Amino acid sequence: MKATIVSIGTELLFGQIVNTNAAWLSSELQVAGVDVLYHFTVGDNPERVRAILKRALDESDLVITTGGLGPTQDDLTKEIIAEVIDVPLIQDEKTIQELEAFFLRRGAPMTENNRKQALMPENAQVFYNPVGTAPGFLSEVGEKTIMALPGPPREMKALFDLWVRPWLNEKTQATIFYKILRFYGIGESALETKLLPIIEGQTDPTIATYAKDGECTVRVASKRAREEDAIYAVAETIEKIRELVGEYLYSTENMELHEVVAQKLIARSVTLSTAESCTGGMFADRLLSVPGMSASFLSGWIVYSNESKTELLGVSKELIEKKGSVSEDVAIAMATGARTRAQSDIAISVTGVAGPDGGSESKPIGGCWIAVASKGKISTFYFEARNLGRAYNRSVFTLAMLDVLNKTLDNKL
Amino acid sequence: MKATIVSIGTELLFGQIVNTNAAWLSSELQVAGVDVLYHFTVGDNPERVRAILKRALDESDLVITTGGLGPTQDDLTKEIIAEVIDVPLIQDEKTIQELEAFFLRRGAPMTENNRKQALMPENAQVFYNPVGTAPGFLSEVGEKTIMALPGPPREMKALFDLWVRPWLNEKTQATIFYKILRFYGIGESALETKLLPIIEGQTDPTIATYAKDGECTVRVASKRAREEDAIYAVAETIEKIRELVGEYLYSTENMELHEVVAQKLIARSVTLSTAESCTGGMFADRLLSVPGMSASFLSGWIVYSNESKTELLGVSKELIEKKGSVSEDVAIAMATGARTRAQSDIAISVTGVAGPDGGSESKPIGGCWIAVASKGKISTFYFEARNLGRAYNRSVFTLAMLDVLNKTLDNKL
Repeated sequence: MKATIVSIGTELLFGQIVNTNAAWLSSELQVAGVDVLYHFTVGDNPERVRAILKRALDESDLVITTGGLGPTQDDLTKEIIAEVIDVPLIQDEKTIQELEAFFLRRGAPMTENNRKQALMPENAQVFYNPVGTAPGFLSEVGEKTIMALPGPPREMKALFDLWVRPWLNEKTQATIFYKILRFYGIGESALETKLLPIIEGQTDPTIATYAKDGECTVRVASKRAREEDAIYAVAETIEKIRELVGEYLYSTENMELHEVVAQKLIARSVTLSTAESCTGGMFADRLLSVPGMSASFLSGWIVYSNESKTELLGVSKELIEKKGSVSEDVAIAMATGARTRAQSDIAISVTGVAGPDGGSESKPIGGCWIAVASKGKISTFYFEARNLGRAYNRSVFTLAMLDVLNKTLDNKL
Repeated sequence: MKATIVSIGTELLFGQIVNTNAAWLSSELQVAGVDVLYHFTVGDNPERVRAILKRALDESDLVITTGGLGPTQDDLTKEIIAEVIDVPLIQDEKTIQELEAFFLRRGAPMTENNRKQALMPENAQVFYNPVGTAPGFLSEVGEKTIMALPGPPREMKALFDLWVRPWLNEKTQATIFYKILRFYGIGESALETKLLPIIEGQTDPTIATYAKDGECTVRVASKRAREEDAIYAVAETIEKIRELVGEYLYSTENMELHEVVAQKLIARSVTLSTAESCTGGMFADRLLSVPGMSASFLSGWIVYSNESKTELLGVSKELIEKKGSVSEDVAIAMATGARTRAQSDIAISVTGVAGPDGGSESKPIGGCWIAVASKGKISTFYFEARNLGRAYNRSVFTLAMLDVLNKTLDNKL
């Protein structure tokens, strides 16, 4: 089944609202085995809505609209759908009764434009709305189906769950299963080059790569008649991917690196302390965004100045003078200082140059030293990012720290 | 001028990514006086991309695409645009040189698919990309214009600012001037109600309000023939707004609260230390994202556990036992402990319950105590958010701390 999502509302075209409905519906439809061909967004303009709906119906078996079902003058979705599928609008008695009851409960008078919400295309299946006043509906047009859902995401999702999902379960024969794999330490084009032997000539599962600042994602999706076949095909392909680029793979469950690390720390009851200079708390913040990390996280220091490195963590003044604050030795002293003071199993430190100022030839902006101290062991790493500005540098420093900690926990360092 | 935004990428149709680009571009175009007719989203399918681009060009004077400019096999935007406007792709020498220099700096080999990024439609104006490897471009087709921008929002915005905005300024005869005002401590509908006397009956400048988690934004935009008239009209309206809701206004320059606070600290040479429990480094991270904050930020502590509050900041064990770790007294002890140790002008502390667990009737999830210690003075604040989950709670706690610090710096507390 092929579908198009049509989002109706001028506020979307003004950029006042980000269209989260289209993404949410797409993800639900994909899982149900429906191919989404297009998202179309159009304002409250009858001619353009009409043209877009006709085009969507031309190419798709299923068209889902969101928005334009409210009581106000610019809510025109129903009128235009009725026109496009050539049926009259008639009053739905159950909706009128529900609206009357709703306004009675509220003690507010029902205005004439609220009555408009009870008009439905003839022969439509009404999607009664338990969480709002605007019902949706489903109309069949020959072999095709058009559905109208309200614009507010909460109502749209409620009507989808209540009416659309059961309909889809009945209609679709195939099941889709997919996993999202996440990688660190390899660029998108290098990843794709390495995966070419699997990508080329393979139609199912499909493999799609995506890049994000400093990270890569691969989606492995299979569409089969039986769900267990799809699950098996995806698992098999993931194993092939693991053989080729397993060293960079950190999650097959679409988890972010900080979630993976936090879960390992929590699951293994490993305690952690942190000593951050250039990342300024970002590393601790990421880890502590994960529920339950309070059990593992003992103490964190943000030691921006040389004085604070010395006073709070005991990094010797002479060492800083001799080696410079951005140096392997200072990173080591920060990590050991933090570990001793916090009495944690592991301590991780970072010192680097986030920019925009403060770089030099030997200490470029975008470079940092990371040290990890654990019982009887200290490891250090130099990481250098392409300097794409302070925000980017701080963010990729944090990712590099997470990668180092992740590999430490896996005994890969 | 009428425009259509075409977003290209199967990940959008799978719902993996929410299309924020279309909203951002729409908002920028609207301010520039361009009418956005449609957003079209299409996957990496050559035939459909071709059909959609043709349709977009039929109805619009300007078509902006995002996505599909990367080095991988499914990046097809350039090839299809060249086909649609009937010109060949030719290699852009400057881009090849930039790519070679980039890979040389990285010490990584340039793969053949990276070379693809240097191909451009003949006669295109290349949008060189200072923040990534995929350049964009502009091609003219008769009276119409098509522009291709990369998909990653950071790169898309950078190229828009660098290349598209100047082009728009030249094309649109009127000059648009706008300011974005930011508010804290007032909801959107309350703000809109208070501004009604100005909003009603005013056609220029236009006033548009937007809500974001815990904050409100107002855009005041004027479109006049002469730039100075637009600037004057906006300034005049801002003064009216200030009279009505000035107490909640913290920036007329679209600066975020942490930027406003950081700039004040830096400009006044005020030194700061922080003691965070429930925000776990987020507060320090926000402030330290601002360049130059290293001069003001002395030390930060992340004291999640009771032990760390006692050992690192000298919060007495008895006090924690008696009052509980989430209490006014512990917040005070954390702030004074941090200020004494860091010898900073100001210290700010927070202790609260971010959730999802750990709440009680007297200490609900979503509640926190904030203390600010300065020379001879301690102020405390209790802040309670509607509990909308750990991420939301931590984020609004951080905003509340920033608000408290901002008002402290303005001597309003």
